[in-house]
Amino acid sequence: MSDESSLGTVYLVGSGPGDPDLLTVKAARLIESADVVLHDKLPGPEILGEIPEAKREDVGKRAGGEWTPQEYTNRRLVELAREGNSVVRLKGGDPFVFGRGGEEAEHLAADGIPFEVVPGVTSAIAGPAVVGIPVTHRDYASSVSFVTGHEDPTKDESAVDWDALAATGGTIVVLMGVGKLPGYTAALRDAGLDGDTPVALVERATWPEMRVATGTLDSIVEVRDEAGIEPPAITVIGDVAATRSRVAAFLQNELGDDPERGDDT
Amino acid sequence: MSDESSLGTVYLVGSGPGDPDLLTVKAARLIESADVVLHDKLPGPEILGEIPEAKREDVGKRAGGEWTPQEYTNRRLVELAREGNSVVRLKGGDPFVFGRGGEEAEHLAADGIPFEVVPGVTSAIAGPAVVGIPVTHRDYASSVSFVTGHEDPTKDESAVDWDALAATGGTIVVLMGVGKLPGYTAALRDAGLDGDTPVALVERATWPEMRVATGTLDSIVEVRDEAGIEPPAITVIGDVAATRSRVAAFLQNELGDDPERGDDT
Repeated sequence: MSDESSLGTVYLVGSGPGDPDLLTVKAARLIESADVVLHDKLPGPEILGEIPEAKREDVGKRAGGEWTPQEYTNRRLVELAREGNSVVRLKGGDPFVFGRGGEEAEHLAADGIPFEVVPGVTSAIAGPAVVGIPVTHRDYASSVSFVTGHEDPTKDESAVDWDALAATGGTIVVLMGVGKLPGYTAALRDAGLDGDTPVALVERATWPEMRVATGTLDSIVEVRDEAGIEPPAITVIGDVAATRSRVAAFLQNELGDDPERGDDT
Repeated sequence: MSDESSLGTVYLVGSGPGDPDLLTVKAARLIESADVVLHDKLPGPEILGEIPEAKREDVGKRAGGEWTPQEYTNRRLVELAREGNSVVRLKGGDPFVFGRGGEEAEHLAADGIPFEVVPGVTSAIAGPAVVGIPVTHRDYASSVSFVTGHEDPTKDESAVDWDALAATGGTIVVLMGVGKLPGYTAALRDAGLDGDTPVALVERATWPEMRVATGTLDSIVEVRDEAGIEPPAITVIGDVAATRSRVAAFLQNELGDDPERGDDT
């Protein structure tokens, strides 16, 4: 067990936004070759559905509705590696963007487990992109900031400084921000952002059932309610969000024209 | 020519940070099937080297050292699509992160050319990740902001608000920021960031000749000079940059242990 040569490697792998075609070549190969794949629900049904049940371990929400404690996941990764397994820890998007991949890496290193990071396509960028919204633009946005709307409940709410984010003048992308939309849109208006600032919501980006809703800081809560947008979704705030209306007529991403994905039923 | 059925599609494709293994499955397939691949140098030699010369068009720096005007690239994409070609516009990282992909999308739509966006792994996240630095961390960074150090020379220098970025309290990632490192590290100290704030530079992330240098806001310019770090490189500023020292001993990314990449010569 303590012989390093018998240790398996843990791969912290990003699965991208959900379309299996947006897995990296390396992620696809590692999922294929891994002995065990630890995951939650965020990689999405299309990617998870292609992984044999026998090697999947779900460390996301449990039957009773409770979350698997992070400590369990940390311990399980170490345990599996010590048994000599090649372990893929699969995370939606990129493993190091609000994915607690950094914490897992530190736990693995502290326990002497060799690991490798396999970056993925983050839905914070890809979600807007596939509906025609570039998160930066030479004319409208010299910076882009990513925050999460779904903060750890044990953390002080003030961890995100909406005033400072508004002051950057750049695009703001909120991951997991459907539920708290009223709070942070109000905070951004209070911070001086114009109520007419374009906002877009992208639900289940790149999944067959992807949905988009657009509005402004003033209108987006109502838009969300009318459209019934649900988690998981990305919120994009800034002038770039208006790009969609100028390009959508010629954008092919939403046509479901990829023969390998087929029609969703 | 104006018959829509004869129009080719333009794919705005991200190539990721440079390791061909970090291309998405879709990008790899489209590069293979495209009639023409328009690119600059940023995808890197490993990815460009795998594309047959006959279908490559370099729209990056010209022999005389001048840049191909963006207008030429816009026109060329339209022209190739009107000839019925399947066109891949290949960009380093993600096409919509400081890649002018948004502008190209708008030009294509204005000219009635069907296009599709294929997001890629951005080096802004992957560069730090593969050297053991998560851009967000539950304990150290509730947000991450991306800016470019290599702004359009025709733009007002004040487009990036370093005061506001410092005030977010989150991680700051500067793309193409080697040359202007002295300017913005000084600006961030003036904005109140501690001189001891950890900083890392990652040159040619995921390329065989990748290099890393770490220091603080106070020391990083000297570190850069001593290490001879050159563009293209990513600068990561924030407490997350210190994660590397805690995990590097067990991080496998830098060992060149991927049998499919082999030794660089």
